Amino acid sequence: MKLGSLKGGRDGRLVVVSHDLAWCADAAHIAPTLQAALDDWGHVEPQLRLLDTDLSHEAIPRERFHEREALAPLPRAFQWADGSAYVNHVALVRQARGAEMPDSFWTDPLMYQGASDEMLAPRAPIPLPDESWGCDLEAEVVVVTGDVPRGTTRTEALDRILLVGLVNDVSLRNLIPAELAKGFGFLQSKPASALSPVFVTPDELGERWRDGKLHGPLKVDINGKPFGRADAGIDMTFDFGTLVAHLAKTRNLGAGSIVGSGTVSNRDEDGGPGRPIDQGGLGYSCIAEIRTIETIQGGKAKTEFLRRDDQVRIWMDDEDGHPIFGLIEQIVAAA
Amino acid sequence: MKLGSLKGGRDGRLVVVSHDLAWCADAAHIAPTLQAALDDWGHVEPQLRLLDTDLSHEAIPRERFHEREALAPLPRAFQWADGSAYVNHVALVRQARGAEMPDSFWTDPLMYQGASDEMLAPRAPIPLPDESWGCDLEAEVVVVTGDVPRGTTRTEALDRILLVGLVNDVSLRNLIPAELAKGFGFLQSKPASALSPVFVTPDELGERWRDGKLHGPLKVDINGKPFGRADAGIDMTFDFGTLVAHLAKTRNLGAGSIVGSGTVSNRDEDGGPGRPIDQGGLGYSCIAEIRTIETIQGGKAKTEFLRRDDQVRIWMDDEDGHPIFGLIEQIVAAA
Repeated sequence: MKLGSLKGGRDGRLVVVSHDLAWCADAAHIAPTLQAALDDWGHVEPQLRLLDTDLSHEAIPRERFHEREALAPLPRAFQWADGSAYVNHVALVRQARGAEMPDSFWTDPLMYQGASDEMLAPRAPIPLPDESWGCDLEAEVVVVTGDVPRGTTRTEALDRILLVGLVNDVSLRNLIPAELAKGFGFLQSKPASALSPVFVTPDELGERWRDGKLHGPLKVDINGKPFGRADAGIDMTFDFGTLVAHLAKTRNLGAGSIVGSGTVSNRDEDGGPGRPIDQGGLGYSCIAEIRTIETIQGGKAKTEFLRRDDQVRIWMDDEDGHPIFGLIEQIVAAA
Repeated sequence: MKLGSLKGGRDGRLVVVSHDLAWCADAAHIAPTLQAALDDWGHVEPQLRLLDTDLSHEAIPRERFHEREALAPLPRAFQWADGSAYVNHVALVRQARGAEMPDSFWTDPLMYQGASDEMLAPRAPIPLPDESWGCDLEAEVVVVTGDVPRGTTRTEALDRILLVGLVNDVSLRNLIPAELAKGFGFLQSKPASALSPVFVTPDELGERWRDGKLHGPLKVDINGKPFGRADAGIDMTFDFGTLVAHLAKTRNLGAGSIVGSGTVSNRDEDGGPGRPIDQGGLGYSCIAEIRTIETIQGGKAKTEFLRRDDQVRIWMDDEDGHPIFGLIEQIVAAA
């Protein structure tokens, strides 16, 4: 089942979306918003699935689903916490700035508490008042949980994952060093993130959803050119069950918590850092990673961060080449 | 005007509370929840004020307001960001662990993104599965904003502050060093915070609300003994206008964002660290601060962190000795 939110109020209007993303059916009579559905999932989910069946049988009124009109499935959320599960990426970034990476990073997940009061629509511009802030994309997988009790195990946590989607976790790279040096994590350096047009239930993903990971190439284009094709299921050191359990170690998580994988990153076949796509590699899911590799290999970064009018596209295709979650497609704007 | 939330759904049921906190009137016909009121404040506020007038004239049905039955005014919120505006406190903590504090800390606010998916009720226990985590209170002032546009100035930000209240920002001190060493800020070391029984509009505070600060002693008792009486209006290096503008530098803030002052802390009269109340000082708003001073003065900390069955009480009295925001009164429980 695929769920999205169309315009209508701060939390949007819940719709069930057809598997090919061409059609949708209003779900307001079941739950007005996706947050409301998640708040009462045990009761609401079976009704949404009936609606989904009716939609696929064309047995009910339906309307065209236009991704450009979609809000983020959760236009605002009560929680957004983002892991760094692809430790390969973390190791590279540290190497480039000459910082040691503790061995514990391979066993203890790194995660930050992000801002969730505004989640951008999949086609919303990335507002950038100042290009010198060093705007970067980060293509990631996210899950949405139901209620998760404090101290939950990895296995229990996996059962609490209700939806899967994609995010562009926008980062202002040039603000990060000073902010992290202050010791309290990201704040100004992480502006609003954008979500994919639809979130889907894990069963919708079939074999792609296994071991608590989403498998398959996460595709990233910048200005229409292939930039990243890394497989989200490969080199993910911590699966989503582990990430959710980590977040819930000392507190309950409320329904509708969004938990991210961190930037997807694959090693090269020979075990080294990934190569660009035009050199036969799988590319990158953020600009910082290629800059890091350029720094390691040549002493300095060459690829520039995003500038105004640059376009970023993030998606994942199914076996037939159709986007599973729709496309995140954003243009950097002056704000 | 004073606003609270009684039991009823995940977001509670909005009530207007009398100035003496003895009575309340259901506001559901105006806005079902405080979040809904904040979402449409320009339209809703005048109606709530009429209800407040009627309540004070006993012109409408009213019910007793029992703080022990109150939820947090926002039982969950879309944002909780906490500053460290009492730089005195930060300087002391750093001094105790032998870390330099950069001069920029006096001009550039320190702030972290906190978890807001569960805000504890004012009388809810503090769940503590493991005493070795080092549980501490932090008594702070909070404000709730309306929508704040990106790049807002301090002065504009002050106009977006709709409500003022108190928080107990619970911290797990023994988890903090390892977590901050990872570089991404607090996560497991900051479990759910508790909010005061009511939030109040700034005009309700009269002269206590000026220069973007709440003035008056913030009272903290531990196990019935006075522990803190520091004045929230003194030694606050960054006022709330500055804190909100700092948070909004690179992004919009959604209505209902909760922004905290950080632990209230006053220097001693002679400019040194504050003394305990039983030694004639103003005491402390968290245990870490007295432990810090003990460490600086005697080489090691003596005061222990909270243990199970310990009771924490946080409030601020008006001129007549009546709590303005009601009492946060929590007992540490096994979870």
